[in-house]
This record gives sequence, C-alpha cells and structure tokens, in this order.
Amino acid sequence: MIALDDLEEFRRYRERMNDRILNSGNLEIKRFFALDSRTYEKGALDTKTKELLGLVASTVLRCNDCIAYHVIRCAQEGVSQAEFFEAMNVALIVGGSITIPHMRRAVEVFDDCKQRQAKNQSIKL
Amino acid sequence: MIALDDLEEFRRYRERMNDRILNSGNLEIKRFFALDSRTYEKGALDTKTKELLGLVASTVLRCNDCIAYHVIRCAQEGVSQAEFFEAMNVALIVGGSITIPHMRRAVEVFDDCKQRQAKNQSIKL
Amino acid sequence: MIALDDLEEFRRYRERMNDRILNSGNLEIKRFFALDSRTYEKGALDTKTKELLGLVASTVLRCNDCIAYHVIRCAQEGVSQAEFFEAMNVALIVGGSITIPHMRRAVEVFDDCKQRQAKNQSIKL
Amino acid sequence: MIALDDLEEFRRYRERMNDRILNSGNLEIKRFFALDSRTYEKGALDTKTKELLGLVASTVLRCNDCIAYHVIRCAQEGVSQAEFFEAMNVALIVGGSITIPHMRRAVEVFDDCKQRQAKNQSIKL
Amino acid sequence: MIALDDLEEFRRYRERMNDRILNSGNLEIKRFFALDSRTYEKGALDTKTKELLGLVASTVLRCNDCIAYHVIRCAQEGVSQAEFFEAMNVALIVGGSITIPHMRRAVEVFDDCKQRQAKNQSIKL
Amino acid sequence: MIALDDLEEFRRYRERMNDRILNSGNLEIKRFFALDSRTYEKGALDTKTKELLGLVASTVLRCNDCIAYHVIRCAQEGVSQAEFFEAMNVALIVGGSITIPHMRRAVEVFDDCKQRQAKNQSIKL
Repeated sequence: MIALDDLEEFRRYRERMNDRILNSGNLEIKRFFALDSRTYEKGALDTKTKELLGLVASTVLRCNDCIAYHVIRCAQEGVSQAEFFEAMNVALIVGGSITIPHMRRAVEVFDDCKQRQAKNQSIKL
Repeated sequence: MIALDDLEEFRRYRERMNDRILNSGNLEIKRFFALDSRTYEKGALDTKTKELLGLVASTVLRCNDCIAYHVIRCAQEGVSQAEFFEAMNVALIVGGSITIPHMRRAVEVFDDCKQRQAKNQSIKL
Repeated sequence: MIALDDLEEFRRYRERMNDRILNSGNLEIKRFFALDSRTYEKGALDTKTKELLGLVASTVLRCNDCIAYHVIRCAQEGVSQAEFFEAMNVALIVGGSITIPHMRRAVEVFDDCKQRQAKNQSIKL
Repeated sequence: MIALDDLEEFRRYRERMNDRILNSGNLEIKRFFALDSRTYEKGALDTKTKELLGLVASTVLRCNDCIAYHVIRCAQEGVSQAEFFEAMNVALIVGGSITIPHMRRAVEVFDDCKQRQAKNQSIKL
Repeated sequence: MIALDDLEEFRRYRERMNDRILNSGNLEIKRFFALDSRTYEKGALDTKTKELLGLVASTVLRCNDCIAYHVIRCAQEGVSQAEFFEAMNVALIVGGSITIPHMRRAVEVFDDCKQRQAKNQSIKL
Repeated sequence: MIALDDLEEFRRYRERMNDRILNSGNLEIKRFFALDSRTYEKGALDTKTKELLGLVASTVLRCNDCIAYHVIRCAQEGVSQAEFFEAMNVALIVGGSITIPHMRRAVEVFDDCKQRQAKNQSIKL
C-alpha cells in the first residue's frame, strides 16, 4: 500500500505548483486549467463515465500523475473494483503491455483509496 | 459526408486483411484478436461505456482507423450527439490540439452513421 | 509540388469540419479552439517563434495536418529556408528517424508556399 | 495486393524528397541521414536482425512509411513469413490493438514483396 | 551501479502487483498476461532475438520498467555488450534523443547484470 | 524548490552515464551525441530559439530529464519568465493536459535556475 503520506505529498506538490502556474501571469494557461476542470463536470455523460474516460486516456498515454488523479476521482465517484479493472483492460488492449507498469500504479492507488473508504477516511484532492 | 463507398471500402479492407492475419498460422496474434473483441463485451460496464472508452483511447493515441471503428460501434450502441462530443472533449483536453485532425474525421464518420440511422440504413462492421 | 488543389482541399475540409464542430453545441470544445488561436498571438515571444514552436511540436508528435498548418503559418510569417530546416533538424534529433516521412511532407508544403510567394500568390488558411 | 505502382510511387516520392532534403544545405540533417543508413549495417548483430528491430520500432511508433520501408528491407534480407508474424506479434503485444491497422499495411506490403520474389522480380528501394 | 536492492525491490514490487492484478477476477487481463509471456518464447525467431525486439520496442516507447525487464532478459539470454549497444543504437536513431535518458537507465541495468554474471550471481525476475 | 543537490545529482548521473555510453565502442551512438550537441548551436536561428524548440519538443513528448536539461539551457540563454510560460502554453495546447505534470517539473526547475541567477550562482550542465 502507498503510504498515506505519499498521496498527501502528491496532493500538496500538485496544489503548490498549480498555484504557482496559475499566478504566473499567463492567461491562456489559466484558461486551459479552467477548461480542464469543466470537462469532467456532469453533462450528457455523468461525471463517473467522464472520469473513466480520463483514466483510460491517461493510461494509454502513460502518465502516472494523471493516472493517480483520475483513479482517486473514480474512487470518489463510486467506481467499483470490477468496473475499474474493465476500464484498465480496455487501456491494456488498446495500449499494449507497455501500459502494464502504469496499471500496477493505478491498482496501487485504487486499493489505497478503497481501504480509506472502508475506514471512512476522506481522500482529498 | 463520407461516401457510402468509403466506409464500405474500409470495412472490406479491414475484413480481408484480418482474415489474412488470422490465417497466418500465428496463434498468439489470433488469441490477441479474440481478447480484443471480448474486451468490449458487456460486463460490470456496459458495451456503450466500453466503446466510449475505446473511442477516447483511440483518439488520444491518434489512429484514424481505430477511431472510425469505435465511432461506428458507438453509433450502433446509441451514443447521442451530445455524449459523442463530450467524449471528444475529454480526448481533446487530455491529448491537446494534436488530436483535432482526428476529431474532424471522427465527427465526419459520426455524422455519416447518424444520417444512415435516420434513413434506417444499417451500418455494418 | 503539391497541387494547388490539394492545399485548397485541405483548407476547405478544415474549415467545413471546424464549422461543424464549433456549431455542435459543445461549449468546452469551442473554448478550446479559441484558446488554440490565442496561443500563437504575439506576446513576449513573437508569432514567428511561436509558429516554429508549433511546427516542431507537431513534427515530433507526427501529425501531417498540424504540420501542414504550421508550415503555412511559418511561411506567412517569413520563416526562411535555412530557419525552416534548422527547426526540422531539432525535430529530427529529438524525435528520431520516425519523423522523416513527416519532414518530407513539411518540406513539400514549405516549397509549395515559397513558390506561391515567389509568384505573389496568397496562401490562405 | 498493393499495385506495383503504389510501391513504385512510394519509392520515387521518397527518393525525390530525400534528394531535396539532402540538398537543402543543412549539414546536420545530412549527417543524420548518413547515420540512419549506417545503423542497419552488419555489426555484432546481422542486418536481418537489425531490420526486424527497425520494423518493430516503426510498428509500435505507428508510422506506415517507416513500416513499409523496413518490411521491404526484411523481405530483401530473407525474413520468412513465420519470422515476420512473430515480430508483428511482439509489436502487437507491446503496442496494443492501436497497432493493428499498421499491421494490416505491413502484411499487405510483405505479401506483395513475397509475390514479387516468387516471380523473381526485384524490389527496389 | 544500481544497488542490488533496487533491482530486488523492482522485482518484488512487480511480482506483488502482478499477483494482485491476476487475482482481481478480470479474466481478459489474466489472458493478456499469459499471451505476453508466450510472445517471447522460442518460435521461428529465438528468444534472444525476441527479447531484443521487446527491448527496442520498450525503448522507443520510453518505459523504464519495461526496459529494465527486457534488459535483464537480454542479459540472461547472453546478449553481448556490442549487441546490446547496437540494439540501443537502432532505438536511438528511430526514436531520437528523447530516448537518451532511457538509454542511460538501460545501460545501468545492463552493466549491473553483467557484473552479477561475472560474479556468478543469478539475476532473478 | 528542488534542492541544489538534486540538480547536481542529475548533472553528475547524466555526465557519468554519457561517459559510459560514449566509451562503449559504438561509433554511431557517439556520432549521434555529437550531432545532438551541434543541433542547438547558433545558425540561422539563435541558440535561445533552438533551446525553446527543444524544450517544447521535450514537453509534448513528456520526458522529464530532457525537459530539465532544456529548461536549464533556456535559463542560461536568458529566457524570461513570460517567454518561458508562453513556450509552456504552446506545449500545453498542442500536447494537452497530459503534459501538465511535466509543466510542473519544468516550472520547478526554471524557478530554481532563476533563484540561482538572482544570487549570481552558476548553473552547470
């Protein structure tokens, strides 16, 4: 299991650097970040489906930080273990064995989230 | 609109070459193709959701033939225009403007499928 | 040389599909397209430098339509042949021989633009 | 089967654009092309093995022109059908279903080469 | 040199997470893992050649864990230093300078394996 | 802020492994490294522009070590904060949100370089 501290550290680093970037004075980057958040809000597709789409996209593009983010969001949206592994399977088939090391990380984060949920601990992002 | 012939030609080429590959005597490739089909069958996630996952994965990895395939499957599974564009938006945000030429193709195929469905024409794959 | 018709066809297809996408009712995609245009406007870096950045990014990510677009924009911004090939060389070194087929296309479009400019023909986008 | 004209056209386009690039006055690009050729010459590994490495690299990176080039070279080096499909299988497993449209093209070019070899026709590059 | 502990840790993490994934109840993922192993077994191509193919594919796709795995397998199959660097050179030419940081890791793991082999230490996977 | 030690460690590791690779006896790899250095030397484009091209290419291809290298070189060439973020914005628009974790690292290294420059500390590479 990933130590609680690790996900906390990830969250803090992400938050600190995002603040730095959003306060850099570059307006287009700021707007991109706003669009990024809006993309996963409920529309014709619900947020859970959109987060699964984000997770699979992040997995085939093989970015561990993006994967960790979407795994946490999926867990928050109530994605079950069976649903999670079926999404991972789509990523694996489309993206190949090169995605396996990223699947390992995704599973690690997912299990960590589920254990916290079992203890009624919140998973902040 | 893509001419009917184009999607027909795509379908025939795809079918002919898949037959050639499956009859090459390489058992592992044959098994991969079987696994590939199985991946999108209904499980904890329904087929529509899985096809949307396949579509977004294909779009961020930027493969026009894979996109065409999953767009047709999405149309067959009843994905609405609003749902389709929200999935495209996830791909666009995650994968960037480099995906736009592929989004153009995806929209072209989607519109073509919708016009056929409006005329009660089947879309074979 | 690429026939005039080819770049014209590319331009018309691009325009028609962009209109279709922008009128799809998906606001986030519309905003992304606006941000995309804004990104290449003069700021601390001039437009010519930004278009060279866009060209190199498109070349290492290997998208022919994006390459054609940025080559045309570079030609419009007065990029010289020597500058163009030095940018191509950065893309080639960073991205490897896999970018060579895309470099061939880029050179073809660049030469086509230069020939039109020599005849005082405009290159619309 | 790919028409003879298609591979001929590919060869001529490749040759013409390479000449254009090599005569552009950019010395670094010229040196890169020389290094590229040298890479596949016999060393501790024989040329056949190196061409198989080039083919698998091109397939997982999904570049049809590079794939066509290395398939032709593999055929010239006497790669058998069974060897060819095993190399394709490595690419498929590592790179996933997204490589399948490229495998179809690779098989088409390979079959074309084998038919020419059966008729004692040369395959120029 | 990578500490013995590092490769040991990598091996244990890999083994533990693979067990977790294979016991998740997702049959398709389990079958993919079986296919993955089978792909590198001796056929028309010997295992050494297949592992070199896997190594080059992993290097151009730039996945350090996959690279480490195939480097160890190559060392176990008796790949010499000259052969190893020629395979790295194919990956470098095809994939460009972006692969260099991964080549550094690959060389580090290869040297580590060779030192263990010189001391008759086994390299488990 | 990245500890001074981290960039130092990165520099030392890079230097040590490059020496190892350049002394491996593989002449083609050695030539590639020489070409790589030459690519960023002043020509029709100045070194600052070329380093920005290298930075954007590295960011859309998402390689943290390459990004760190080019960020340091950009800082050495006097790239301003506004210029740096505009280059990052091109990478973000072209490459999408998947580049954001890499932008965070790039900003971290850039800020670190700027703080050293403010203290008249050198940034060795």
